[in-house]
Amino acid sequence: MSTEIGRLVIIGGAEDKEGDKQILARVIALSGADRARIAVITTASSITAEMEAIYTRAFLDLGAASIIPLHIDDRADANNPDHVEAISNATGVFMTGGSQARLAHILGGSEVAKAMHRSRRDRGTCIAGTSAGASAISEHMVRDGDQDILPRKDMTNLIPGLGLLKRVLIDQHFTQRQRLARLVAAVAENPFVLGIGIDENTALVVDADTTLEVIGAGTVNIVDGRSMDSNITSIRPGTLLTLNNINLHILAAGARFHVESRTVRPSVPQPVPVGSPFPG
Amino acid sequence: MSTEIGRLVIIGGAEDKEGDKQILARVIALSGADRARIAVITTASSITAEMEAIYTRAFLDLGAASIIPLHIDDRADANNPDHVEAISNATGVFMTGGSQARLAHILGGSEVAKAMHRSRRDRGTCIAGTSAGASAISEHMVRDGDQDILPRKDMTNLIPGLGLLKRVLIDQHFTQRQRLARLVAAVAENPFVLGIGIDENTALVVDADTTLEVIGAGTVNIVDGRSMDSNITSIRPGTLLTLNNINLHILAAGARFHVESRTVRPSVPQPVPVGSPFPG
Repeated sequence: MSTEIGRLVIIGGAEDKEGDKQILARVIALSGADRARIAVITTASSITAEMEAIYTRAFLDLGAASIIPLHIDDRADANNPDHVEAISNATGVFMTGGSQARLAHILGGSEVAKAMHRSRRDRGTCIAGTSAGASAISEHMVRDGDQDILPRKDMTNLIPGLGLLKRVLIDQHFTQRQRLARLVAAVAENPFVLGIGIDENTALVVDADTTLEVIGAGTVNIVDGRSMDSNITSIRPGTLLTLNNINLHILAAGARFHVESRTVRPSVPQPVPVGSPFPG
Repeated sequence: MSTEIGRLVIIGGAEDKEGDKQILARVIALSGADRARIAVITTASSITAEMEAIYTRAFLDLGAASIIPLHIDDRADANNPDHVEAISNATGVFMTGGSQARLAHILGGSEVAKAMHRSRRDRGTCIAGTSAGASAISEHMVRDGDQDILPRKDMTNLIPGLGLLKRVLIDQHFTQRQRLARLVAAVAENPFVLGIGIDENTALVVDADTTLEVIGAGTVNIVDGRSMDSNITSIRPGTLLTLNNINLHILAAGARFHVESRTVRPSVPQPVPVGSPFPG
């Protein structure tokens, strides 16, 4: 019997946890609904108990069967067979926000990370993350750092994510923290990666085919640098970049995009637009 | 005897007026240097006396021969033959910031506006403007309005500028006020126009051929919507836009671009990058 590979739900941070919880509801729906067993990984956060309480309540409110809190605070925890077993028993894994660097340092290449890949592939486990936990789903992520709103050479340092979505760089809190500059700068340095910036309370749902669909209240910005020219090889670090022919997609709820081929797919109809000030 | 058509200097607001005044110095250089007679139009502003004093001091500091302050506060002023005569005697015209709508209401289609076109064409007069005065140089401009950082249908209202640069829409304070959303929304509605967003303390110098060069400390964002697809015809006002295949150029000092053909031109070398944190 074949099981479809689990969906990814990649959230730009600050998702609704009190109201209709549209995005978290999608995580539960894709994790088996009332049979959902959600492993919650708070490794990125510096306030793990609070994070665990917030997401436990939200997921139980949404009808999940059970929550499996995982306390992974160092490499030993990340290789602990009990934690690997917990991942294997979950139908969904959720990574909270916090520090991308902590996720890379603690989870990168660990047995828990391998279990996430394996469970997604073999058992259809849904893998979700918000903010730093969203970046960690991608193959590459920006380490916490430069918040300049203008693109400069060497303004970003990339670190490896868990690699559940290949050849992409995911950034979050995107429009709210004005991160287009660091995304285009990173793509200029590495046109190999597709840059994806996700707004707050907005998410991507990615299927096995790497087709993504946008849900939530904001936008997702996709930066394709294949045709980009820049002056990056001829200027000094810290100097402003000139970037020509960036192919930019700004996607709202319902929009779809095929990551592997970098092509637009037809949108899912949105009968009642999310966030419309003119309802009815 | 033929005279070359006057240059345009289009400034994104908040240009340096106290230090080396790089941008304002270019206005003076292109207006005849120590023979420069600069007509200053404060029509956009609500603090005209203060504006007049600031720019008079800055331009005289930079070696201008004389300043011609024009007080144009209504349509009668804008058609006053004395003001038309003053424009005809100037070697440069400078429009301050303030309200785009005031410039359209008062200067649009006036004898003073016609004199600016005529002097530029026949006498090589340099035409410069900052902030609202920059937008007014273009054929189309955004009326003061929606400051949403996400692109929505009908978020902008376009009004006519003075049309010194055709088939473009110029916005200013661009990255600082996070105006990419309203620029891409305006271009989605009107792919006919090339969207140009100019940062603070940054300017375009445009020659007769419509080749622009970027000067100053920030970036210029150019949004070309010729290949753009959007959902604009199928959604309601206020709904988030999905915009695919935006062709975006982010240009720093020295970068050049040909407006009429919408193509990149080779950059002017910048031996000492402006604003580099790593000088020397």
